[in-house]
Amino acid sequence: MKESAMAKHNNLMEKIVSLCKRRGFIFPGSEIYGGLANSWDYGPLGVELKNNIKQLWWKKFVHERDDVVGLDAALIMNPKVWEASGHLKEFSDPLVECKKCHERYRAGDVGLVVPKIGLTRMVADACSKCGSREYTPPRRFNLMLKTSLGPLDQYPIILNLGSLYQRKEELNGIQEKNKDQQKELEELEKEIQRLTMIINSSTFYFRPETAQSMFVNFKNILDTTRKTLPFGIAQIGKAFRNEITPGNFIFRTREFEQMEIEYFVRENEWKKWFEYWKDEMMEWMKEIGIDKKHVHAVEVPEGERAHYSKRTIDFEYEFPFGQKELYGLAYRTDFDLKNHFKEAPYKDAHSQADGGEALYPHVVEPTWGVDRSVLAVLCEAYDDSDAERIVLHLKPALAPYQAAVFPLLANKPELVKLAKKIYDDLRKEFSVAWDDRGNIGKRYYAQDEIGTPYCITVDFDSLEKYDVTVRDRDTAKQERISTNELRSYLNKSLFR
Amino acid sequence: MKESAMAKHNNLMEKIVSLCKRRGFIFPGSEIYGGLANSWDYGPLGVELKNNIKQLWWKKFVHERDDVVGLDAALIMNPKVWEASGHLKEFSDPLVECKKCHERYRAGDVGLVVPKIGLTRMVADACSKCGSREYTPPRRFNLMLKTSLGPLDQYPIILNLGSLYQRKEELNGIQEKNKDQQKELEELEKEIQRLTMIINSSTFYFRPETAQSMFVNFKNILDTTRKTLPFGIAQIGKAFRNEITPGNFIFRTREFEQMEIEYFVRENEWKKWFEYWKDEMMEWMKEIGIDKKHVHAVEVPEGERAHYSKRTIDFEYEFPFGQKELYGLAYRTDFDLKNHFKEAPYKDAHSQADGGEALYPHVVEPTWGVDRSVLAVLCEAYDDSDAERIVLHLKPALAPYQAAVFPLLANKPELVKLAKKIYDDLRKEFSVAWDDRGNIGKRYYAQDEIGTPYCITVDFDSLEKYDVTVRDRDTAKQERISTNELRSYLNKSLFR
Repeated sequence: MKESAMAKHNNLMEKIVSLCKRRGFIFPGSEIYGGLANSWDYGPLGVELKNNIKQLWWKKFVHERDDVVGLDAALIMNPKVWEASGHLKEFSDPLVECKKCHERYRAGDVGLVVPKIGLTRMVADACSKCGSREYTPPRRFNLMLKTSLGPLDQYPIILNLGSLYQRKEELNGIQEKNKDQQKELEELEKEIQRLTMIINSSTFYFRPETAQSMFVNFKNILDTTRKTLPFGIAQIGKAFRNEITPGNFIFRTREFEQMEIEYFVRENEWKKWFEYWKDEMMEWMKEIGIDKKHVHAVEVPEGERAHYSKRTIDFEYEFPFGQKELYGLAYRTDFDLKNHFKEAPYKDAHSQADGGEALYPHVVEPTWGVDRSVLAVLCEAYDDSDAERIVLHLKPALAPYQAAVFPLLANKPELVKLAKKIYDDLRKEFSVAWDDRGNIGKRYYAQDEIGTPYCITVDFDSLEKYDVTVRDRDTAKQERISTNELRSYLNKSLFR
Repeated sequence: MKESAMAKHNNLMEKIVSLCKRRGFIFPGSEIYGGLANSWDYGPLGVELKNNIKQLWWKKFVHERDDVVGLDAALIMNPKVWEASGHLKEFSDPLVECKKCHERYRAGDVGLVVPKIGLTRMVADACSKCGSREYTPPRRFNLMLKTSLGPLDQYPIILNLGSLYQRKEELNGIQEKNKDQQKELEELEKEIQRLTMIINSSTFYFRPETAQSMFVNFKNILDTTRKTLPFGIAQIGKAFRNEITPGNFIFRTREFEQMEIEYFVRENEWKKWFEYWKDEMMEWMKEIGIDKKHVHAVEVPEGERAHYSKRTIDFEYEFPFGQKELYGLAYRTDFDLKNHFKEAPYKDAHSQADGGEALYPHVVEPTWGVDRSVLAVLCEAYDDSDAERIVLHLKPALAPYQAAVFPLLANKPELVKLAKKIYDDLRKEFSVAWDDRGNIGKRYYAQDEIGTPYCITVDFDSLEKYDVTVRDRDTAKQERISTNELRSYLNKSLFR
């Protein structure tokens, strides 16, 4: 991207962050305490936008389909899940430390690209803090968030372990140990082992992805729903990663929300279903108003794919800060089900007359980031090309309010009364805002800025003719609509 | 409760847990790995039931009201929030340990009632593991879930700290230290301080309640919504408590979901709004089908209230395992806003002509447990009084499926075709199940057990007369309804 285009784009990002705070979409987390790096709270309008995205997704991919069922699993699972899935071993980033100022980076972020085959480059970018280019060799840093469960505090136990190790080292330093020292060393070993076991058995992880809970529940879901291949399990929920370098507003945060489907298929059909879900994901983006011109389906080459994947496509979106991953689609093979189930968990009723043969289904996994969806939707919708007003061209199904109702003058009780009546009536079916402050022009602009598709004004004519002015957000055009026809007008206009 | 009644009730609990697993409402978490104590996953039907409860709540308390707005805040906040709120100091349970077998208990759970004034009783119940009645004195055990954020692993640092403490102790043991030892001790102190700071600054807590994020965002929300008193902030989200003794299915778990409103009022009006929200909570219970005969509004006496509350009512429900808290209503005074805001955050436009006086609003807080709502709804709905069938008498708005459609015979294409047409048509408006397995009687029972209010059967008469059999879950009565009128019939019956 050219520098001027980049500047324009960065500027867009600032404008969006500013709008989000000013109008109550998204606030910096814990702001009154100086914030908490890369944590964000969805405010009154943001929670509606985000919920609309989640509900639309659930409707499209769960309720309207016969072949997908839902799940909502606990965030903390038995650690054996992460052992079996490979996350304890593999789910890490290569971390380097600036030798001069000790700032830590993901190796890739300072130009030290580290694919699985090893380091390819030792000339790194300058440290953004001190300018040095010398880093420690990369070491693996596991990204799972740890916690401790159960009625004990790990801290004093680990302190104690530290002092035991210290003593052990001292004893080991003695060349010729006497009997007492020999015995102390043995007891020390035992105590270290005992305390280490206590620490291990009270250490748990917040899930770094929603996926594993769907694999682990595969058989329970199969048994209760009696689905046959192909079928999917869908989940919306939080996941947690101790990212070394989070950033870019809600793009990369340490807690985030995913919408994910594990779609189980026969091995010989995975390619077909991979293409199918690629199309479905493109269709979804269209539905939430993301222009496909801004989306790039990028094949992830072998060395860079996750350890479980045989094919991955990243759907990269042209965010203001660069072209970055929005959604992902992965073919996970039967890797996960094989990790978790010693015996093949699916019985193929089609293959044999007498009961069928057991098999491990293969998995095609489309994944959507919720927060990234919100961000991409905002980037697409934001429009300040008109010097007079900022407009969010949100899809009506996503807008926090689908309509707003105004009395022309707030101090005329007869106008307020009729407007309130219309407001209460419309609310039964739509999400509707009320505003009676300032002049009409200001109210229009205030609604444009939060993406309300239609503004309805009750004026003096309304009292006699039972009609109202309906103004369209995108065109700013106004029409007179009979109050009787308002609901059907909105229904038609919002969902055309 | 009499022993026979208790046995019957415990039996009910077993039946509900069993039904939940058998039909896919709720599975034991991480079950294939031997589970994870007190963790539960909502399966395909459970996620629908839970979502229906959450969406009904949001509709009633946010969308249909002018005076309440929503929030969805991060689970991890700046630790200063928990310092200011008093949670770091106060949010703890008294923990005792059996002197013989080292099993740990909440003091209250072994009969050592410990209100704020101190221990009242030293004759404890027998340890359920070893039978001993001797316990250590209670010590405070903080219930917040800790984690570490940022690019470092705390474990080796704490180990290191442990060895430094060990060395410090050794040096302190030397009566007359030489210069080198004196210097080592000083450097040791510095290093201990430095490492302790690193540990502290990377230690974070998962929120133990949703409430604080609403207080911390008070001013941001006020500024963006321009609400005036009284008004509320609503949130649905997870919270985490490292409970010493969780249990009773989804009743008490270490991660759980809350629906909560912080309602901000003028101090002199708190009593009025407390009563108002008490009524609203009773009304809500009615809407989700909880018989008020089974609910007891219990005043929490002063010594047992949370540190911030001047009045608390627990809504206790007659669960099969005893009468226990379902929901709570607390008057939190201006305790929280005063903790978080040095200056009064609300400007009272009514008190003065020239701009008004700043004040700290007072807070009335109604709180609903999501998981406890699910459990109470299941307890109310479960009915096996008819030997032939188990019925879940769920309110139609909560049922995972509002209707089911069957072709009388699965091997008659003309029946299947018409039934599918009806199924697809109804799905646009309702959540609908499809079943073509086994005989009709079995299908009815299968739907009764998951609470589907209406079963619609397409038979040979349907092909000629364009009508279907609609069977009512609760009465088991059947009527013939014209296919044209099916949608309006369902609308009328489901939401009457």
